Amino acid sequence: VIQRNIKITLEYDGTAYSGWQTQGYKSQAPAVRQGSHKPTIQESIEKVLQKILQEKVHLIGSGRTDAGVHALAQVANFKTNSGILAQKLQRALNGLLPADISVLKIEEIKPDFHSRFSAKAKTYRYTILNRPQRSAFLRDRAYFYRYPLNFQLMQREAKALLGRHDFAAFCASGASAKDTRRTIRKIVLRKNGGLITIEIEADGFLYNMVRNIVGTLLEIGRGKFPAGSMRKILRLKNREAAGPTAPARGLVLVKVKY
Amino acid sequence: VIQRNIKITLEYDGTAYSGWQTQGYKSQAPAVRQGSHKPTIQESIEKVLQKILQEKVHLIGSGRTDAGVHALAQVANFKTNSGILAQKLQRALNGLLPADISVLKIEEIKPDFHSRFSAKAKTYRYTILNRPQRSAFLRDRAYFYRYPLNFQLMQREAKALLGRHDFAAFCASGASAKDTRRTIRKIVLRKNGGLITIEIEADGFLYNMVRNIVGTLLEIGRGKFPAGSMRKILRLKNREAAGPTAPARGLVLVKVKY
Repeated sequence: VIQRNIKITLEYDGTAYSGWQTQGYKSQAPAVRQGSHKPTIQESIEKVLQKILQEKVHLIGSGRTDAGVHALAQVANFKTNSGILAQKLQRALNGLLPADISVLKIEEIKPDFHSRFSAKAKTYRYTILNRPQRSAFLRDRAYFYRYPLNFQLMQREAKALLGRHDFAAFCASGASAKDTRRTIRKIVLRKNGGLITIEIEADGFLYNMVRNIVGTLLEIGRGKFPAGSMRKILRLKNREAAGPTAPARGLVLVKVKY
Repeated sequence: VIQRNIKITLEYDGTAYSGWQTQGYKSQAPAVRQGSHKPTIQESIEKVLQKILQEKVHLIGSGRTDAGVHALAQVANFKTNSGILAQKLQRALNGLLPADISVLKIEEIKPDFHSRFSAKAKTYRYTILNRPQRSAFLRDRAYFYRYPLNFQLMQREAKALLGRHDFAAFCASGASAKDTRRTIRKIVLRKNGGLITIEIEADGFLYNMVRNIVGTLLEIGRGKFPAGSMRKILRLKNREAAGPTAPARGLVLVKVKY
């Protein structure tokens, strides 16, 4: 039997979920221990897919976003024996999925496409609300950081991250990656009033890499780490030299390139 | 005893509330009948103010936003005997209020300032998501409208509303307004990809006026009402001639001018 391979592009608000996938994820163990029973995005979609297709489905994501992390265009794929039209499947999914998950696109794709292994690059964006008052609208979409930040210094320091480096200093301790080298192709900091965004495109990301880079940039912006710190921290390859992990809510997976 | 008059500027996500105030509001009676017990924004803030100030407080809003309607800068005021500093009160409020209500500004103001009666103009913005797929991120912030719209026609027709008119056709039936004349100073339609926003500034608004104007513009954009309809509907002064009331979730109170 030749199965069809279906590619899905998804938008989701990660606030109510324990991440893309729970299994095997250290960072999410505490939530489970504390008895929080938020569903995962993956299982929520698989459940609806199985209802529509009347067969068991295994959904593979391009990467596992953490609890509270959002996606503007996550990509996933699954194999199916069903002959359902892509357009019909998309309508059925958007009709049955919860309001905080939406399907932007569905297409049939060549059999060897794998949303994770075929990915060539990813873009993440982190949003910081830097003003004296918190925002009701951005409560789950930005990190509220009230202390004044030296934005120009953050911009300059971020440039040290461009290119191919060993990002061990920005990798969650205990993560399983053997090779901690990655290539950052683009890192763009923007400021618009009290809103600061940090957008990073790389060929791949280590676990917590964006949130650890952001935590470090915030320490720099606040004056806790001096100019030149970013280059130094990269060289030290030691997680403890870098800043803390910025909260999940400010992070969004913007794009996956194939 | 001379009481201080305190002006508050508020941002809120109205999704979890039954509106600014429940009392005396026809449109909210069904929710109450159905046993939904969402709190009002007003009572939520009054409760926290009373806790902080240790006295009974009556909060007056510039107007009563409906259940599900949001505010970027609602204005309210209250009288107090407390000598608390504005800055301290703001910090205490933002510490104790729920995450979906935030206080942007607090200032002491002259005794005769009344957030409703002193208002000179208000601006509302309505957001429509006009594309084939719904959006997880905008689920509570925009009206998802999937049918193709003639945006240019909507823009042209909206111009008929500019200036002083009797807006009886756009006033909820059963509303108590005796004089249904208002002046629209500005009406701006913008389109950015699938997002359409309609921003209206007026010296005042009748009950459901923005949502009824938007509902009518959508009928025009979809081709159900021909060109010239807006002018005709205005002249008819009959609610039944206009389009349906657009959903609350797309509406946000942007600004109150004094």
